[in-house]
Amino acid sequence: MGDNRLLRPSDFEQARQRIGDLVHRTPLLSCRTLSHRVGGDLQFKAELFQKTGSFKIRGVFNRLLTLSAEERSRGLVSISAGNHAAALAYGASAVGSQATIVMPATAVASKIAATRDYGGEVILTGEGLLETCRQVERERDLVFVHPFDDLRIMAGHGTLGLELAEDLRDLALLIVPVGGGGLIGGAATALKLIRPDVRVVGVEPEGADAMTRSLAQGKPVHLDTLNTIADGLAAPFVGAHNLAHVDEFVDEVVTVSDRQICEATRALLFHAKLAVEPSGAAGLAALFSGGVKLPSSGSTCCVISGGNIDRNVLCRIV
Amino acid sequence: MGDNRLLRPSDFEQARQRIGDLVHRTPLLSCRTLSHRVGGDLQFKAELFQKTGSFKIRGVFNRLLTLSAEERSRGLVSISAGNHAAALAYGASAVGSQATIVMPATAVASKIAATRDYGGEVILTGEGLLETCRQVERERDLVFVHPFDDLRIMAGHGTLGLELAEDLRDLALLIVPVGGGGLIGGAATALKLIRPDVRVVGVEPEGADAMTRSLAQGKPVHLDTLNTIADGLAAPFVGAHNLAHVDEFVDEVVTVSDRQICEATRALLFHAKLAVEPSGAAGLAALFSGGVKLPSSGSTCCVISGGNIDRNVLCRIV
Repeated sequence: MGDNRLLRPSDFEQARQRIGDLVHRTPLLSCRTLSHRVGGDLQFKAELFQKTGSFKIRGVFNRLLTLSAEERSRGLVSISAGNHAAALAYGASAVGSQATIVMPATAVASKIAATRDYGGEVILTGEGLLETCRQVERERDLVFVHPFDDLRIMAGHGTLGLELAEDLRDLALLIVPVGGGGLIGGAATALKLIRPDVRVVGVEPEGADAMTRSLAQGKPVHLDTLNTIADGLAAPFVGAHNLAHVDEFVDEVVTVSDRQICEATRALLFHAKLAVEPSGAAGLAALFSGGVKLPSSGSTCCVISGGNIDRNVLCRIV
Repeated sequence: MGDNRLLRPSDFEQARQRIGDLVHRTPLLSCRTLSHRVGGDLQFKAELFQKTGSFKIRGVFNRLLTLSAEERSRGLVSISAGNHAAALAYGASAVGSQATIVMPATAVASKIAATRDYGGEVILTGEGLLETCRQVERERDLVFVHPFDDLRIMAGHGTLGLELAEDLRDLALLIVPVGGGGLIGGAATALKLIRPDVRVVGVEPEGADAMTRSLAQGKPVHLDTLNTIADGLAAPFVGAHNLAHVDEFVDEVVTVSDRQICEATRALLFHAKLAVEPSGAAGLAALFSGGVKLPSSGSTCCVISGGNIDRNVLCRIV
């Protein structure tokens, strides 16, 4: 699966068979107050209740379960702002491997701690993450697991799209937070292959809009600076696989401000009673901002991508 | 149902028929980290996702739907620290009535606001709640709805016990927060009448232990002072109906400190990703404290009774 093809239905079905017993089928939740506020039937796909607190474990397990025994024994290396790091550490431990993750020195403290708790080795760096990672890969002869630009990772994330197609028969609009593009690439593709009528919209922070820029330029763009409270969406680039799938299967990508993300985080906390990290609130922020319009009929689903909020961030937002 | 009898299976079945379409059948959630920490299969009955953010609406609807048209047209009055107030305001509006609620001047700001948002009239007082309430009842010729010492209120709350009996076949231990005793009185009775083998434990804050004292003295005891962060459990007394049902159907009532309640609130927030009010965390606090032992087999369920946490309280706890 290292080629440049697009994912097919069989990729998602195989991923589900592989990881189905290892991940949660997360619930759909609704909140009368928030549905009323946006003026439609609003559902939340609660990936904050997923193992390790975010959707990331879906793709990680699908990737790790296609590694050879030799690759697992060598150990894994990756880059992450936090949620992929925790998922990879957890997944590696579950399949009898070991993960080293290069994280930015500015990463959220609780995510670094969670990664270590799951048995991962964390290398913090102020330099370029990918360069440091590639150096560690070479020096220690590790297997590189890309956090999003990988068809197996995307196929695993796509199992979320299969669940939505089955659990929300009247789904008309799906809103997905966008970092590197792994989740939206997988979930939009899995969903559209079954239900081409559903509209899929991606949401990026204004200060980390790599997908928006990449779509405009027709190629993956690297951002020089990142500036957002949604650390989980602060990817400095999107991958070629991600861009290709978003270009083919996503109807639109919009941006939201940090102010709007914080407002949506508070609304989810105090009305929906969900402890969501800022990244997970991006979909609701897009509805609040008016940047995404509700469908005239059918339900709207926001993917709550994660719930690993740090106490300092929480206090700042509340 | 104004007599001194104990509730029967038909009371709960009738309550469910009456309110089933008006309240949520709340989900059971689990968290691997917290199950691991307490050393057993731990489930959370998520009443924080219930309409108005707590279990209170169950009993309120069962009470309001047995009022006569004449009583509804006169309007309702009650006392509450907050969650019953919001539920009564919401319920009154739904059945075409109007609610006036006497609340302590020290009530949590967000609960006062929610009650008003649902259309309730709030009277704040620094005096005795019940005395003020009875005076308003007389002056305005309103119908008094007791927040917990009422068989119809308890029967409505008991529908939670029916759901647990059906949804958790291996339930061995149920832990319920105790304020006035309406929830535990109803839920323990409904459950034990179907599954007498399940152990039921109540939890009170050390600074609001009216049930513990009432059980010891064999009659309802009034507390002179209340001192707990769990405002939803800060009832100055328990009712005669509540005491009778707890005495008959509850195995044990234990107390927890505010420190333990805060620790459990944080654990639910950061691990289970649930925005729980302190009262709702009392069950987990009892497990953390070691005051309640897990069963040797079968699952343990903590009722997360509510999620209406105030932002100031949240910041203080986090």
